[in-house]
Amino acid sequence: MTEVSRLQRQIEFITEIDKLKLIQRKSFVSGTRRLETSAEHTFHVAMMAAVLFEHAAPEGVAMDRVIRMLLVHDIVEIDAGDLILYAEAEAHQKQREREQRAADRLFGLLPEDQGSEFRALWEEFEARESPDAKFAAAIDRLQPLLLNYMNEGAAWRRHGITADEVIAKNKHIAEGSPALWEAAEELIEECIRRGYLKHEL
Amino acid sequence: MTEVSRLQRQIEFITEIDKLKLIQRKSFVSGTRRLETSAEHTFHVAMMAAVLFEHAAPEGVAMDRVIRMLLVHDIVEIDAGDLILYAEAEAHQKQREREQRAADRLFGLLPEDQGSEFRALWEEFEARESPDAKFAAAIDRLQPLLLNYMNEGAAWRRHGITADEVIAKNKHIAEGSPALWEAAEELIEECIRRGYLKHEL
Repeated sequence: MTEVSRLQRQIEFITEIDKLKLIQRKSFVSGTRRLETSAEHTFHVAMMAAVLFEHAAPEGVAMDRVIRMLLVHDIVEIDAGDLILYAEAEAHQKQREREQRAADRLFGLLPEDQGSEFRALWEEFEARESPDAKFAAAIDRLQPLLLNYMNEGAAWRRHGITADEVIAKNKHIAEGSPALWEAAEELIEECIRRGYLKHEL
Repeated sequence: MTEVSRLQRQIEFITEIDKLKLIQRKSFVSGTRRLETSAEHTFHVAMMAAVLFEHAAPEGVAMDRVIRMLLVHDIVEIDAGDLILYAEAEAHQKQREREQRAADRLFGLLPEDQGSEFRALWEEFEARESPDAKFAAAIDRLQPLLLNYMNEGAAWRRHGITADEVIAKNKHIAEGSPALWEAAEELIEECIRRGYLKHEL
């Protein structure tokens, strides 16, 4: 009986997460009608955290922890897929169950100490209670707003999303960063002015 | 005259780096014949650093610094494109010049302090002299080896790459991590055994 080494388990996880490049999100890459992949989104939000951490709420955040949290935040989509933010409550509930099973399997590939650490980071992100998680969630919401702005609201139009829905689902950006919510509100106002986003469909 | 705010400059950089999702690399996403984008590659190597840092050379590395270095390491490809590792020396020299101009423009979008910090991280990565940079470079080389293994050597075959070239261009993995180079050597041997990689074309 040969023991699977720590490095072998780590490499198994690393090869498995390649599949995050096959998960399509709802946002289009700017200037295109090609859907962004979850791996690309993850790159983007991790980089945004590195650039924007000074705008976190006054209690401050640990930038590097936020980056790691964002690196793992969508891994579960490999099994559970991406659900649009604007889905019904029931769909979100079913998605949470799928994501818990996905987390068991995917983080379970790693050596136990690492698997637990990554799982805890992901659970913290999902709970959105700690300052780090609130800021990570703010970044995760701001990114599709920016992509929608750059693509003249194409993803909102495709899914029939109104301005009120956008505000309702994104206003928690303020909990992680009042400054970024102020910028997001201006962006939403500008999208409404330009007709990218409407109050009624 | 209105001053462009710090946040506006940061958002300009963030929207600009969306273009890293349009740069195609030479590796295929596992199980597909779809080329990986540089944004996806960046996600993958950042995550690998978070998982594999315990295997760094004995002097050790600052994991979070390595992750940030990897987040910025390919940004210049937005202007300079991706050059295959196995290109001639002259092509690499021209690429370096293009990348310097790209770094001027892209990091120049950021507020000066941040632009300088990111630029320094990128220069450090390129110089491959510090332990952090050697480890980041090891991860950056290991990732396409893994993808080639998973895709039965498809990218090597497409570009007519031999086993000797793969060893010559990747052996510096040992400088960043003897353990990862040992694993890479085993992987290369296995690719040769399976016929994914040949000593002569």
